[in-house]
Amino acid sequence: MGNINQDNSSVVVPLGHGDPSHFPSFRTTPAAEDAIVDALRSAKHNCYATTVGILPARRAIADYLNRDLSYKLTPGDVYLTIGCNQAIEVVTAVLSRPGANIFLPRPGYPHYEPWCAYNHLEMRHYDLLPKKGWEVDVDAVETLADENTAAMVIINPGNPCWNVCSYEHLNKVAETARKLGILVIADEAYDNLTFGSTPYVPMRVFGLTLPILTMGSISKRWVVPGWRLWWLVTSDPNGLLQKSGVIDSITGFLNISSDPATFIQAAIPQILENTKEDFF
Amino acid sequence: MGNINQDNSSVVVPLGHGDPSHFPSFRTTPAAEDAIVDALRSAKHNCYATTVGILPARRAIADYLNRDLSYKLTPGDVYLTIGCNQAIEVVTAVLSRPGANIFLPRPGYPHYEPWCAYNHLEMRHYDLLPKKGWEVDVDAVETLADENTAAMVIINPGNPCWNVCSYEHLNKVAETARKLGILVIADEAYDNLTFGSTPYVPMRVFGLTLPILTMGSISKRWVVPGWRLWWLVTSDPNGLLQKSGVIDSITGFLNISSDPATFIQAAIPQILENTKEDFF
Repeated sequence: MGNINQDNSSVVVPLGHGDPSHFPSFRTTPAAEDAIVDALRSAKHNCYATTVGILPARRAIADYLNRDLSYKLTPGDVYLTIGCNQAIEVVTAVLSRPGANIFLPRPGYPHYEPWCAYNHLEMRHYDLLPKKGWEVDVDAVETLADENTAAMVIINPGNPCWNVCSYEHLNKVAETARKLGILVIADEAYDNLTFGSTPYVPMRVFGLTLPILTMGSISKRWVVPGWRLWWLVTSDPNGLLQKSGVIDSITGFLNISSDPATFIQAAIPQILENTKEDFF
Repeated sequence: MGNINQDNSSVVVPLGHGDPSHFPSFRTTPAAEDAIVDALRSAKHNCYATTVGILPARRAIADYLNRDLSYKLTPGDVYLTIGCNQAIEVVTAVLSRPGANIFLPRPGYPHYEPWCAYNHLEMRHYDLLPKKGWEVDVDAVETLADENTAAMVIINPGNPCWNVCSYEHLNKVAETARKLGILVIADEAYDNLTFGSTPYVPMRVFGLTLPILTMGSISKRWVVPGWRLWWLVTSDPNGLLQKSGVIDSITGFLNISSDPATFIQAAIPQILENTKEDFF
């Protein structure tokens, strides 16, 4: 806000209306608060966590995400990170190598750009198409790709366009990425939150077609972005990420970086289990 | 533990005995737990935090650290980070430039090395001298320095040697660093915890002599390393860090990186205020 030209009389539209606490109609479920308090009061989780996240939390998240899948994620596929920023930091650090490029959506979420720049990962932007409900310009993706393309990021449900991609469109994206031999990074911060009639489909349902990195969280569905608990999940039933060293690189980076607070991690199984459907 | 040679019958000495929850005699004060629960139950801190940390927490930490100082820290001197790892990540990223080097103690805390390597900051190790109670080998520091030396790290109370440096020795370190024109990074993770008779003195008491970066936390004194709340503090009464761009670089890095959970930040004033002296 400090950069706004005070001499310009244009109306400023705030884009942070989804942030709770400032807007009291958005409050999380007491079940989630209770889970945090129980974990804290137990005094069992004041210690350091394992660097990739504690096992009960990873197991609960794998179970939660497995509901939609024809293959099974294991706790070993789940890595806990501090907010989306650390997930983006990890992914861009892991994929960076001399000359590598990555595709980002335009419009998109702005934190990808600084982390790509920081990690010397060349950014190539593909357009979202307003006349097609902000779908990915798949033809442009094919044109942009070369042998140095590491991955493409897709944000679904969209941020900032709030579109929801259909199964058919996501399938087309998956087939295109498979053909190009690039990884799909699915930013699903807003998973299950949809305002239209298109059902939400997670990108990882195409995990048997190609490896997927999912980034997700309790931040939006439970309305607690300040709790700083995200997951980075590898859908790799065919073992390609394991074989290529991506898994080892993720683990290696997390071994030296910071972790979400241990008692918040410890609350995850109870949060996922005790939240009633009528809250959502 | 996975790397231990099972054929070797040597006794393995565990070095993680200070980690609470595994050792139930170490429990934090109920006042600290209550502060977290109050902040959580208020539902006022589920939102994103300002990237450098929320103002009430920064103010409370500045007041807490000011007790020992002849100049005054302001809330603007305090940056909240997620554990020491993020503080080390920030500092090594900020000081990195082509050819730059940094001095690390030997023996020392092992997380400095990977972050220096990651950020292309050349490491030069100075010895701690066992015959002098693990004091800094100040003569060696002078010999190691050149025009590309950015900073020296001093860990006091020591980790892993658990020595406490006297005022006189710290003054000698400060004078040496001032003469060499290098920054002192004071890792005070274990501040106020001493096992010998030497009184603990924070390095920042020499802030009028030269700029100091202090890294500290509630982790050890309140026995809650898993809460992941650290501070990086700039002692810069003469404005040298401001003028050289170090302050802007710290702020810039924190603008894109992750933050400690907001409700844990919000609990800090109450934790610092309500903890009774008899707990320590």
